[in-house]
Amino acid sequence: MTNNKHVVALDLPIPEMKDLPDDVRKYFEICLEKLGMVPNVLTAYSQNLKQLDGFSRLYNELMMGESELSKLEREMIAVVVSSENKCFYCLVAHGAAVRVLSGDPMLGEHLVMNYRTASLDKRQRAMLDFASHLTSSPATVTEQQVQALRDAGFSDSGIWDLSNVIGFYNMSNRVAIASDMRPNQEYHSQAR
Amino acid sequence: MTNNKHVVALDLPIPEMKDLPDDVRKYFEICLEKLGMVPNVLTAYSQNLKQLDGFSRLYNELMMGESELSKLEREMIAVVVSSENKCFYCLVAHGAAVRVLSGDPMLGEHLVMNYRTASLDKRQRAMLDFASHLTSSPATVTEQQVQALRDAGFSDSGIWDLSNVIGFYNMSNRVAIASDMRPNQEYHSQAR
Amino acid sequence: MTNNKHVVALDLPIPEMKDLPDDVRKYFEICLEKLGMVPNVLTAYSQNLKQLDGFSRLYNELMMGESELSKLEREMIAVVVSSENKCFYCLVAHGAAVRVLSGDPMLGEHLVMNYRTASLDKRQRAMLDFASHLTSSPATVTEQQVQALRDAGFSDSGIWDLSNVIGFYNMSNRVAIASDMRPNQEYHSQAR
Amino acid sequence: MTNNKHVVALDLPIPEMKDLPDDVRKYFEICLEKLGMVPNVLTAYSQNLKQLDGFSRLYNELMMGESELSKLEREMIAVVVSSENKCFYCLVAHGAAVRVLSGDPMLGEHLVMNYRTASLDKRQRAMLDFASHLTSSPATVTEQQVQALRDAGFSDSGIWDLSNVIGFYNMSNRVAIASDMRPNQEYHSQAR
Amino acid sequence: MTNNKHVVALDLPIPEMKDLPDDVRKYFEICLEKLGMVPNVLTAYSQNLKQLDGFSRLYNELMMGESELSKLEREMIAVVVSSENKCFYCLVAHGAAVRVLSGDPMLGEHLVMNYRTASLDKRQRAMLDFASHLTSSPATVTEQQVQALRDAGFSDSGIWDLSNVIGFYNMSNRVAIASDMRPNQEYHSQAR
Amino acid sequence: MTNNKHVVALDLPIPEMKDLPDDVRKYFEICLEKLGMVPNVLTAYSQNLKQLDGFSRLYNELMMGESELSKLEREMIAVVVSSENKCFYCLVAHGAAVRVLSGDPMLGEHLVMNYRTASLDKRQRAMLDFASHLTSSPATVTEQQVQALRDAGFSDSGIWDLSNVIGFYNMSNRVAIASDMRPNQEYHSQAR
Repeated sequence: MTNNKHVVALDLPIPEMKDLPDDVRKYFEICLEKLGMVPNVLTAYSQNLKQLDGFSRLYNELMMGESELSKLEREMIAVVVSSENKCFYCLVAHGAAVRVLSGDPMLGEHLVMNYRTASLDKRQRAMLDFASHLTSSPATVTEQQVQALRDAGFSDSGIWDLSNVIGFYNMSNRVAIASDMRPNQEYHSQAR
Repeated sequence: MTNNKHVVALDLPIPEMKDLPDDVRKYFEICLEKLGMVPNVLTAYSQNLKQLDGFSRLYNELMMGESELSKLEREMIAVVVSSENKCFYCLVAHGAAVRVLSGDPMLGEHLVMNYRTASLDKRQRAMLDFASHLTSSPATVTEQQVQALRDAGFSDSGIWDLSNVIGFYNMSNRVAIASDMRPNQEYHSQAR
Repeated sequence: MTNNKHVVALDLPIPEMKDLPDDVRKYFEICLEKLGMVPNVLTAYSQNLKQLDGFSRLYNELMMGESELSKLEREMIAVVVSSENKCFYCLVAHGAAVRVLSGDPMLGEHLVMNYRTASLDKRQRAMLDFASHLTSSPATVTEQQVQALRDAGFSDSGIWDLSNVIGFYNMSNRVAIASDMRPNQEYHSQAR
Repeated sequence: MTNNKHVVALDLPIPEMKDLPDDVRKYFEICLEKLGMVPNVLTAYSQNLKQLDGFSRLYNELMMGESELSKLEREMIAVVVSSENKCFYCLVAHGAAVRVLSGDPMLGEHLVMNYRTASLDKRQRAMLDFASHLTSSPATVTEQQVQALRDAGFSDSGIWDLSNVIGFYNMSNRVAIASDMRPNQEYHSQAR
Repeated sequence: MTNNKHVVALDLPIPEMKDLPDDVRKYFEICLEKLGMVPNVLTAYSQNLKQLDGFSRLYNELMMGESELSKLEREMIAVVVSSENKCFYCLVAHGAAVRVLSGDPMLGEHLVMNYRTASLDKRQRAMLDFASHLTSSPATVTEQQVQALRDAGFSDSGIWDLSNVIGFYNMSNRVAIASDMRPNQEYHSQAR
Repeated sequence: MTNNKHVVALDLPIPEMKDLPDDVRKYFEICLEKLGMVPNVLTAYSQNLKQLDGFSRLYNELMMGESELSKLEREMIAVVVSSENKCFYCLVAHGAAVRVLSGDPMLGEHLVMNYRTASLDKRQRAMLDFASHLTSSPATVTEQQVQALRDAGFSDSGIWDLSNVIGFYNMSNRVAIASDMRPNQEYHSQAR
């Protein structure tokens, strides 16, 4: 097993890379090749390969599948949700992704700190207002907020995808916080 | 496509059952056989089969896979998270599951309305206190709350699973709320 | 004295029915005849007959006296206030009353879980928005919220009655929560 | 009818004193004699004599009946509840009562502004902590808070009375706020 | 050193008046002459003369310098900020200032208790709404709230001054609360 | 006047550097020399030289004067307060200062995102818990929280200084948010 202490504060049976089944090892090797690291969230989930399988498939489809939302927009949502929930792991990891995908380091900082201070067009502002509202006060979200998204140009399919991305980080934020998950060192210096 | 209006308020390209790929149709037929219905959450996700695949695999592993948490306990957590977030769909569906699995209709009502009024042993009370705290105020969860779970008898693997179940309903609550998802009629009368 | 444990968690000098003064015993017998039970809230208050007298008179006038609000509407308000305050006793008792008076079991569930998901006309939606706001954030209620009620068709007398019903359950919710009052078993199965 | 504008902002059919039934007129005359005024809350309720009857009986028993709580303590609770809810009418009226009954003008100011700054013995501090908690966050009050009251010397009957007084002002605060009730001028200068 | 107990609950090296440097003693003597007292906030800060110097200069300029805001308006803002934060010291001291400067004792009471109940023109209502919002929820203040002030007649310089006064009391409230600062007796009876 | 747009969103009469009085120009030239820039907060305050004078003196004494708190600790407090209030300007400027003074870039990120995830000794954890509490919920701070600081090793003078630093950023956060103050570009890359 790897040294958990670099990954999570919980004592979990995380296997060493060499002990992983072929398909998972291959997945992790692709991460290493493309990203220069295996994101700690995947390492943590590898303590239960079926959880890893479901989590990865959902993550990959929501963040990289076909959608009216651009990949950058999905990362922007990830950061705003994580800022509401104050999730250190996700702010570091997805803040870096916003810097990389946007080529605008300050945009990442704005979204980490307070998305309301960023220069955004009407569509992205509506998108992030919804992310903030659905994260911090889900009980009060109604048709009115959904209509505001339509007015800003989102289709109903786009709103479904948006809600799923918001939901996904409300899940992973809580897993990361409860396990005190630590981000890989590599994120910090990306695209500063 | 099915009549969306019974499923969600968003206009989504939900296919008719006969148009689903074989494996998905088979999955839905098993639902029909075992539960007497296809849960609307699955029907809704079928508008994007890759999302459905990831969501179902994660759901099935977290709710029915091996764990130190019993199936009833996982449903209890689902209800308490959904009560914090006031998610109508999940309260109806998982409230029914608690009634069915516990054989105690009033337990379902307590958890829907205010879990603090239920008669619970120390372990389950700690579990639901954690579910409530991690749902409503994730930013303030620290080692102290995790230690309280260990003190109540949870292993670190159990705490990981618990956090994942809490996380999962914080995701699906938001998707259900944003899409105004409607529960199948069948849930209401189950195990009253 | 009756066995308090079925009524409240506080140790109170609740008299047995046979030891009650004639007028109170008669009142309780009418309850038994009409409702099939003496509601536990009345049993609890019978530990102090003057409190019972004031409470009952106010309750009977606010919930059954002449008013622009229908009896069902008053029960709807009771449930929405109790849902904000998460009062188990009142949600069980008045959730049942909504099911009985409306003949619509799902309406009771919507109001218990999140009234914003119920199908309501504009007047009832305004009424319940006001109930929610005045319950959860009284300090910020101003002329603006009162005017919204007038715009939805309420007269000033109706607004006074509405505020009194909202106020009444903000009182009884807190008495029931502090004393851990338990609802009579009969409510649970009514009008499911 | 009296000039409503001095009493509430709602347009209510408040009768002139001479048109009141004998028993109510007598009650109001006693107020005039003892207090130098008819409190506006009673004038407002006189628009519906049955509501006035229930409200007055409950008020008189809770605030002046036999109890382990002193009359000053009940007024202290009224002020702390009203401070949480920011009810202008009740803060003026019951702030004056605290000044009068305690002979300590600054105590009234402390309780209006922030009871945590007042010099209180352990019992009264526990009493007001409970009033604050049950007012602002009823859903989280459990046996633990009730036990803290027992530990501070309250009997279960005292806790019942305390909860009723807290509940009563959570009712009347909301009625006063919604109707924009104005306090009689006389309160302001009492016992400064 | 003076008897701290009348000033703050912290044990601070507060010098006696006779031991102060000439310019500070002169400043305090002017206070005594004009106000009949040295405000305890100044006495407290005199434990560090450089802090006193910075604090006094900023206070004097913000509260008494040239501005589109009248002196009364600045005191009104001080009270509303302090009411949000429930700062006893500042509510007593600046509540008195509002009574003195306005000649309207009830205005002071309204602002201490709930500014929304005061009779205010549109400009002052906008000013106090902004003070309340920027105090209780700074993260959500955006261009929209600033524009509302412009619409109510404030220039951008006035908005800057307004924000500084709001900021200043958010500072001094926290210093007063943390040190349990006690107001001079003289304030209580001023302009009742 | 300088181009306000790089400094604040309000239209303020900010003088050009050459038009400043000698002592202020000298102060700004020292900033340029030592920091490589004039912090925009000082440029903004230069629109009113008396405000600038009071603000600068208080800032310099609180952040650089004699104190039991180290300079790094004061910057850590600045970041934690600003994170509670989500002030973009102060998070950028003081996040950089924490990176520079600590030589630990990740510490800055932890404090910006959620100080509870940082590795801190008991004293610094108590200090930041107090900063968070006094910022987000000043009304509930009492002797109990002050005693926790003493137990963690702070003297009463240290607690006074700590409260002043917390207060100061609760002031400047609000001024920066209301004026939409923009941080100098230089901060972003410092000590990454």
